Amino acid sequence: MEFLVRTENLMPVDTPDDTRERLRRAERERAMQLREAGILKRLWRVPGRNATIGLYEADDATALHEALASLPMWKWMDVSVEPLATHPQERK
Amino acid sequence: MEFLVRTENLMPVDTPDDTRERLRRAERERAMQLREAGILKRLWRVPGRNATIGLYEADDATALHEALASLPMWKWMDVSVEPLATHPQERK
Amino acid sequence: MEFLVRTENLMPVDTPDDTRERLRRAERERAMQLREAGILKRLWRVPGRNATIGLYEADDATALHEALASLPMWKWMDVSVEPLATHPQERK
Amino acid sequence: MEFLVRTENLMPVDTPDDTRERLRRAERERAMQLREAGILKRLWRVPGRNATIGLYEADDATALHEALASLPMWKWMDVSVEPLATHPQERK
Amino acid sequence: MEFLVRTENLMPVDTPDDTRERLRRAERERAMQLREAGILKRLWRVPGRNATIGLYEADDATALHEALASLPMWKWMDVSVEPLATHPQERK
Amino acid sequence: MEFLVRTENLMPVDTPDDTRERLRRAERERAMQLREAGILKRLWRVPGRNATIGLYEADDATALHEALASLPMWKWMDVSVEPLATHPQERK
Amino acid sequence: MEFLVRTENLMPVDTPDDTRERLRRAERERAMQLREAGILKRLWRVPGRNATIGLYEADDATALHEALASLPMWKWMDVSVEPLATHPQERK
Amino acid sequence: MEFLVRTENLMPVDTPDDTRERLRRAERERAMQLREAGILKRLWRVPGRNATIGLYEADDATALHEALASLPMWKWMDVSVEPLATHPQERK
Amino acid sequence: MEFLVRTENLMPVDTPDDTRERLRRAERERAMQLREAGILKRLWRVPGRNATIGLYEADDATALHEALASLPMWKWMDVSVEPLATHPQERK
Amino acid sequence: MEFLVRTENLMPVDTPDDTRERLRRAERERAMQLREAGILKRLWRVPGRNATIGLYEADDATALHEALASLPMWKWMDVSVEPLATHPQERK
Repeated sequence: MEFLVRTENLMPVDTPDDTRERLRRAERERAMQLREAGILKRLWRVPGRNATIGLYEADDATALHEALASLPMWKWMDVSVEPLATHPQERK
Repeated sequence: MEFLVRTENLMPVDTPDDTRERLRRAERERAMQLREAGILKRLWRVPGRNATIGLYEADDATALHEALASLPMWKWMDVSVEPLATHPQERK
Repeated sequence: MEFLVRTENLMPVDTPDDTRERLRRAERERAMQLREAGILKRLWRVPGRNATIGLYEADDATALHEALASLPMWKWMDVSVEPLATHPQERK
Repeated sequence: MEFLVRTENLMPVDTPDDTRERLRRAERERAMQLREAGILKRLWRVPGRNATIGLYEADDATALHEALASLPMWKWMDVSVEPLATHPQERK
Repeated sequence: MEFLVRTENLMPVDTPDDTRERLRRAERERAMQLREAGILKRLWRVPGRNATIGLYEADDATALHEALASLPMWKWMDVSVEPLATHPQERK
Repeated sequence: MEFLVRTENLMPVDTPDDTRERLRRAERERAMQLREAGILKRLWRVPGRNATIGLYEADDATALHEALASLPMWKWMDVSVEPLATHPQERK
Repeated sequence: MEFLVRTENLMPVDTPDDTRERLRRAERERAMQLREAGILKRLWRVPGRNATIGLYEADDATALHEALASLPMWKWMDVSVEPLATHPQERK
Repeated sequence: MEFLVRTENLMPVDTPDDTRERLRRAERERAMQLREAGILKRLWRVPGRNATIGLYEADDATALHEALASLPMWKWMDVSVEPLATHPQERK
Repeated sequence: MEFLVRTENLMPVDTPDDTRERLRRAERERAMQLREAGILKRLWRVPGRNATIGLYEADDATALHEALASLPMWKWMDVSVEPLATHPQERK
Repeated sequence: MEFLVRTENLMPVDTPDDTRERLRRAERERAMQLREAGILKRLWRVPGRNATIGLYEADDATALHEALASLPMWKWMDVSVEPLATHPQERK
């Protein structure tokens, strides 16, 4: 099942650059694993913001939550999840 | 997977009583079938409103949509769906 | 450039079935053309609603508007458009 | 009487891990007592968030408030309560 | 248990005066019965609007819903209900 | 003239217990005086929150403001005031 | 006591011109009486809209409601009222 | 003084094509006059909607209101106006 | 041109009393100058809040911004400005 | 393609004056470069606020994001971006 996921990164502005950089790299690495596992399918940046819109696929909301909570930046993120149904036009 | 579903019935106030009653009975019958199929698990009334909150279980958002759209009142309903994840306290 | 597009179909409940069906078929046909032109890339149904979320690609907002306004159902639709930027993780 | 209760945990991100863990355990223990007392009937996690949706049963809003305020995490929680009426379909 | 109830009367502006007057009288009569039954305790008008704020007391949300739905104007009303807990300052 | 007053107490979670307790007692004492003066007529707790809904009576908004601002907790409170008109059903 | 009052005129677009004009004149006349009575003190137009912001003075919300409901256009208006307190800078 | 003006055209979907076309032409003509008068400086379409964002310049909100209300489509439009101040970077 | 200006004072609760008092006096003094200059015409307190509603007159939004930004408390204030047009009833 | 961009500067009130001034100058310098590159076309101040509305032109949302994120104040800014389509009246 697919989900549309918005994240807003609320990490404090005064976070030291190296902490921020270390987290960004860890975040990227974990995201890559989620891509390889077929969970993270697309990721966009919301222009002008430290925010993303992502297309995820997971068995259910519980599996999705575990994927999102495994991101190193998760505890600073404001996340909202929207369930997606298949549109008749895309049914096989 | 479980979903929390809110419905608001927007059928016009001047709908004839017999149309309304016929639809209400059909609605109830279809809801009973969804209960027997294990899709509709609980249904509450929002006090003071022609509105409900329901707990549904379905394979995914597509199956849920089909269940909701099969309700005779569906075309008059404003529906919103929220995905639910299992809470660690309820995990077996 | 990619866009996230939400549509809510506000066609009156009492629209005759054949009008509705004719429009639905025309809509589907036009959507197919937009897919072939690479403008409509994905389309989801918002569960429980007569609403969609779509991923579009167009040269700019003007070209996107023309694509959306060419849909036979457009005049009954409430549409909102969100611009998407490429996320660094997806940059080549 | 049943209530739908949303909680959002606003505990600061920089809370030490052991404080957080100690509170989580106490929270779980108190929740278990509320379950045994028949007050907390179901608990879900809102996917992607440090938030829950719960189904509670209490004599009235005063008893519900006391149950919620007895949770060790309560002072960090943003809580909202919605009263639920029995739906005619579930009446005996 | 007490509840705070807001109502907004959405009866169409072009309702004939005698229909409106007949309903107003019936509404008043039913409200009087609810007062005598101890269900409707106070009623205010929201200044400038065809709207009220009321203080109700009922066994639970189900009994409250029945009281509200028994009002002759109910089907034209947009109603919202808020549960009230006893404040420690008012506890005996 | 009557007013409906909502307060949300935003005092920081880490306020020392004795400060909090001292303020709570002072708050209660001042509230008692406002009751005796006929200004504070009823007070409810919003279930699940550190928040209240109160029914006040004062000559005008200026007198009401002075009463509210005299509460020891006032500077931590988010307050909103709604004017209430007498409903025809309650007119003598 | 002073009040800030917003009105939005929702009279249907297809109201015949003479009905509209007759009501506009009656509205103006009644407004003039409210000015002479010291109830309506200032009236502004919200630019671009068929809407106003007004400064009213009345004994209380009940008297204000009566003044507003006496306007011939009232039944088409969406009205919201905000109570105003005297600012210390304007106290005599 | 400059203003940012949003308009949403709410003309009913079933307006006959020739009425709509006649109004569109009149609208365009009046807009051209406002451009020549230096009042309408830029006009954009909100993608996907029958809506515009415009940059206007007028002596004050009263002159702006007159310009907007002179548009043939005005009575079907939902309009909102935002005042703009000169940014220090653009001061001469 | 007239403007309706709302301010919400967000100065931290723990600001020392003398700082607060010094700023309050400076604020009052600057406000008095704005009154004498005909810029600040009326000022009300929003009951229950550390907030005001003001009626200002200025050549344009730029002049208004300068007046507001000259207030000693400005950097702690959340300000919103609404343009006001002359109502036909008040035209000379 | 053109974009309407709103920014709200959330830099803490207690930022030292020289830091603030240094950033303001760097901001102005970078903005000037964006103007020369044809990316920043107009910039307004929202009256009463530390906020701007800007008209930008960029190849797409990705190029726009890079321009915005290159502003020295960006990390303190709350930014929202709206895509603009060419209005038929302005088509050549």
